[in-house]
Parts: sequence; structure tokens; C-alpha cells
Amino acid sequence: MTTASPASYQRIVLASRPKGQVVPENFRLETLPVPELKDGELLVRNHYMSLDPYMRGRMEDAKSYAAPQVIGETMIGGTVGEVVASKNAKFSVGDKVIGMLGWSEMGVSDGLLLRKVDTTHIPLSAYLGSVGMPGLTAWYGLTQIMQPKAGETIVVSAASGAVGSVVGQLGKQLGCRVVGIAGGADKCAYVVNELGFDACIDYKAGNLEADLAAATPDGIDAVFENVGGEIFDASLARMNPFGRIALCGLIAGYNGEQLSIKNARAFLTMRLTMRGFIVSEHMDLWPQGLKELGGLVATGKLKFRESVAEGIAAAPEAFIGLLKGKNFGKQLVKLI
Amino acid sequence: MTTASPASYQRIVLASRPKGQVVPENFRLETLPVPELKDGELLVRNHYMSLDPYMRGRMEDAKSYAAPQVIGETMIGGTVGEVVASKNAKFSVGDKVIGMLGWSEMGVSDGLLLRKVDTTHIPLSAYLGSVGMPGLTAWYGLTQIMQPKAGETIVVSAASGAVGSVVGQLGKQLGCRVVGIAGGADKCAYVVNELGFDACIDYKAGNLEADLAAATPDGIDAVFENVGGEIFDASLARMNPFGRIALCGLIAGYNGEQLSIKNARAFLTMRLTMRGFIVSEHMDLWPQGLKELGGLVATGKLKFRESVAEGIAAAPEAFIGLLKGKNFGKQLVKLI
Repeated sequence: MTTASPASYQRIVLASRPKGQVVPENFRLETLPVPELKDGELLVRNHYMSLDPYMRGRMEDAKSYAAPQVIGETMIGGTVGEVVASKNAKFSVGDKVIGMLGWSEMGVSDGLLLRKVDTTHIPLSAYLGSVGMPGLTAWYGLTQIMQPKAGETIVVSAASGAVGSVVGQLGKQLGCRVVGIAGGADKCAYVVNELGFDACIDYKAGNLEADLAAATPDGIDAVFENVGGEIFDASLARMNPFGRIALCGLIAGYNGEQLSIKNARAFLTMRLTMRGFIVSEHMDLWPQGLKELGGLVATGKLKFRESVAEGIAAAPEAFIGLLKGKNFGKQLVKLI
Repeated sequence: MTTASPASYQRIVLASRPKGQVVPENFRLETLPVPELKDGELLVRNHYMSLDPYMRGRMEDAKSYAAPQVIGETMIGGTVGEVVASKNAKFSVGDKVIGMLGWSEMGVSDGLLLRKVDTTHIPLSAYLGSVGMPGLTAWYGLTQIMQPKAGETIVVSAASGAVGSVVGQLGKQLGCRVVGIAGGADKCAYVVNELGFDACIDYKAGNLEADLAAATPDGIDAVFENVGGEIFDASLARMNPFGRIALCGLIAGYNGEQLSIKNARAFLTMRLTMRGFIVSEHMDLWPQGLKELGGLVATGKLKFRESVAEGIAAAPEAFIGLLKGKNFGKQLVKLI
């Protein structure tokens, strides 16, 4: 399907930095004319844009792993779409591409950070999820940091999400006992029944510590942590000696909440290793990871679920929902 | 010097587990007759016994890296001494040995866990400090976990202690900027003037965060953490990307105090790696470490300081003082 290029497009810029919780007024929808292409450039019409927790961090003007999102500029974000005009010899109209064109219906690129993708066996949207940055994040944390052996018990928080769901499924394929933590009975049922985890703890049910203990009778050997706070402390209390923790996210504290690790002693008494990581800093491993993930998705061995908001104007609300755990699976915005 | 073997000896046993702070009543001094040796055994008269923070953990009946100290048994501990009787072909009267004979003036051993040491160039007591477990702890954490490069900034808490003093001196030899944290102006002056650290922060002076910031203008690349609590949080706030933390001790919480890591976010935003470790689990590296440390002590390139209590009856008070930071350098008890 090739779509004609309209004369204007919409984008969302950061209007202001959040004070605590993100509110719709932190964003502004703008309409811009489609620019003329210069030599070497191409124009992409985005089909989907990705919403990810890391974007919350970029909205802050704080010391972190990346420069803050600039006020008034297009919100950062991954996109998949189709080339609709090209003055770049490496890209043709109709090519499907993944890139970081932001919260925007269209984008101009010099092609350097765009990658062509094959949608023969893998749906375009999956390149923003299981076969994209979230999938790679899961793959990297599991294979490079957690390094579980068959028979070990691993725990994954935010288990139904774009990252957690991949961690758990890959863990099962390695022969691990996999326990998820998610918010709500629906998500937990999905994690166990659809994704094949051995158990899933509903942290909203109010018995997190006891439920996690019951689900991890042999303790925990490795954790993929997306949440932090009480959820992480509950896992720390169950760690076995020489446990490994891949620290991927602390979504419980993204709005500036105090986010202590209460169980600091466990790191010493259990000789734990914890490593925080950002998958974009390990690009050398992306080809290997993408190959494995792509093969699994193409053959139906890696399941995923998407929450799809319709139209760019719906992005702020969907993003705010994501931060509150309202999404169910990978959060996307469908643009066309 | 060979000493005659008396007919009885004294030891200290754990009388009760502490409730919060350790008190003298948790220990009991006992007098026992020197036992007859069986074939294969030898008798050691201990010259020095070691007091170390890890012993506090053993006094608890809690899940940790080692079995709890048994009530009524000799308190665990490292010792150096001299063989005074032997029915073991591998040991002769007069041999100087290091072992784990506990808080005791004498000990019977089958020789398996004893090691002969050479006191030609290294004083016997140093085998309990810089050329023993504390020195190895420092060497392991620095070389295996922190892995600093020349020009990097490293921070060491409990800097004047048996472990911290070695970490910092080895770090200087690697070309690092080394900043210590210690309690009191005297200790800090020693750390800078005698041990050669670049700076030392007196955490008792009340300006920990500001003082540490001033002493680490380029941030912190690696931390050797012995203390925990506010001291560790202050270091976390200054970490550079990809910083490494060797977690060796949490003496601030050894009496059961809540010991949160408040600055959990730093692990993610700075992609830190933290590893808790116990050097006794890495015996494969001891020969290498001991060789390096022994060479440095024998040639005067590694300085150390000892706090020496006199007589076994003084051990409980000296141990309680150690937990409060009253010692200055390696805490020993001289037994003969």
C-alpha cells in the first residue's frame, strides 16, 4: 500500500515540563506544511508511533542518560512508516522503514538513522515492539545480564508490557521457571494463559510479598526490573545467592516519587549483581538480537499484544495511561 | 620466638544474640584445659586475633551468606600464631601460621585450613590485615569489580580502616584520583597525609554531600562501599555513567537500622553496576592477590595502621568499638 503525500501534517511537541504527573497540557499539537526535500533526503509517512516509558525521563530537565527533550521540539519516539518521496538513492517510494521520527505523522530524514524492514512475515507494528527496541531491551537484559540457566527462577515486573512479555517468553524457552508481576487479574491471566508464564502475581491484590513467596518456592535467581519501589523490594527479599538483576526501568518513580530500595542488605548478604542498562548503548548486539526475535515472531513462537490509540491527537492521553499501567501490551498510536 | 604451651587457655563464646547494638553480655569468657592432640593434629598458640565487621552479621540468626555463629561456640575469627605442639607431619613446632581459630588463645587444628606464613619481611599481624582477608577484600573489589582506569575518580568509605586503606592505596598506584570518606578529622588527616589519598571527607563534619561534590569535580567512576546509608547515597548522587560499585559492607546497618538506598534512580540513569561480594568465595584469586599485597607490604609500598587491644578479655569491648568506628586502622587483639 502506497499512500499519497498530503500537503500538511501534524506533530506533537513538548509544551512544558511536567510538575509531578504528566498532564495533557505538557503537549501541544501543531500542523505544519510538508517541507520540500533537499538532495539526499526522503519523506516518511508514519503508520505507527511508539509510546514508551523512557519518554517520561526525557521530559525532565535532569541529569540522566540522555539529553532532555527540548521544549517546542517534536517529542522523541520510534516510528514505522513508508517512504512517500525520496531524493535519496538508498530509499525508494514504498519502502517500509523504522526510525526515530518522533510524535509526528510525517518526517524528513537523510536516511542515516532509518532502517528498511521486511513485512513479509512480521507485521510493521511489531518492529516497534517485540522485534524492535522493547524486544531488544528484553533480549539484552535476559541474555547479557540475567543469564539464567535452565531450572532457575526468574521474575519479571510489568510482565504484560512490551518488554516484560518478551523477557518471560524468552525465559521459558531457556527452561526457566518464570514468574511475572503485573497489575490486575486480566493482565495476570493473559501472562499465564497466553504468554505461558508459570505464575503471575497481581500486585494490586494486596498480598504481593506472600504471593511472590508462594510463587517462588526455590527463591529467585534473576530479576528483570521495570518498576522499582515495593515491587522491587519484594523480589529482593526472595533472591538467592549470586542473583542477577537487570534494571531496565523504575516506572513507579517516573513522576518524581521517592523511590528507595529498602532492602539494600540483600545485595550484600546474597552477593547480588545489579546493572542498569539502556539498550541503545549496545547497538553491536542488535543484529544478533533482532535476528533471534524476528525469527521467533515470524514463526509464532513469540506472542505479543498491542494497545492501539487512533490518531496522533490521542497520543498524550495514551502516554499518560501508559505511565499509569492502563495499557495492555505494547502501546502504539496508529497514524494512518 | 617459641613459647611454651600452658595447661589451660581462654576463649570467648557467643553467649546470646544481640538485640540491636552488641553489648558485652553477648559474649562469655571461658577457661578450658589444653586438649591432648590426636594423630594428625597440631596445637597453635595464637599471637593475634582479628576483629572484623563481618562478625556482626554472623551473630544474627538471619538468612545471609554464612551460617550463623552457634551460641556457646567459640566466636569465629581469623588468627595468626605459632605451632607449639604437633602430631602432623606437615607442621613443626615454631611454624608461624594463619587460620580461623576464633576468639581464642589456643586452637587445635588438623592443618587443613592452616597456612604457614613467612615473617622475614612481613610482620605476623599483617597477615590478618593488609596481607590477609581485609587486604584481599580490597584487592578483589578494586581489581575485579571496580576495575578503575588511570585518571578515573574512585571513592572509598571507611577509608582509614583495614580494607578501605588498602583500596585507596592500590587505587593511587593505578593512577586514580582517590577520595576517602572517614569519621573524624584525625582519620581524614591520616588518610591524606600518610596513605596518600587525594582527599578525604569527614562525614561527621556535617557537609557530606557538598564536601564530596567539591572533592569529586569530575564525578565518581567507581565506589568501594563499606558503610551504606547516607554515605552511600552521597556517592550515588555523584556517579558517572557506567560507574561500578563494589559492595563490601553496610556497617551503618549492622545493628538492624533501616538501611535504604534512597538514590535508586541513579542505577538506571547512570547505568551503574553494583556487585555485593565476599572474598572468601573467590579463593581461586587469593594466590595472585596475596602475592601482590605481600610484595607491596614487604617493600613498604602499602602502609597500614593497627589498633591493638591487649588480651582476650578486651576483645568484646574492642569489637563493639569497631562497630562504632572507634578503631583506627586494622583492629587486632594481642594475645601474647
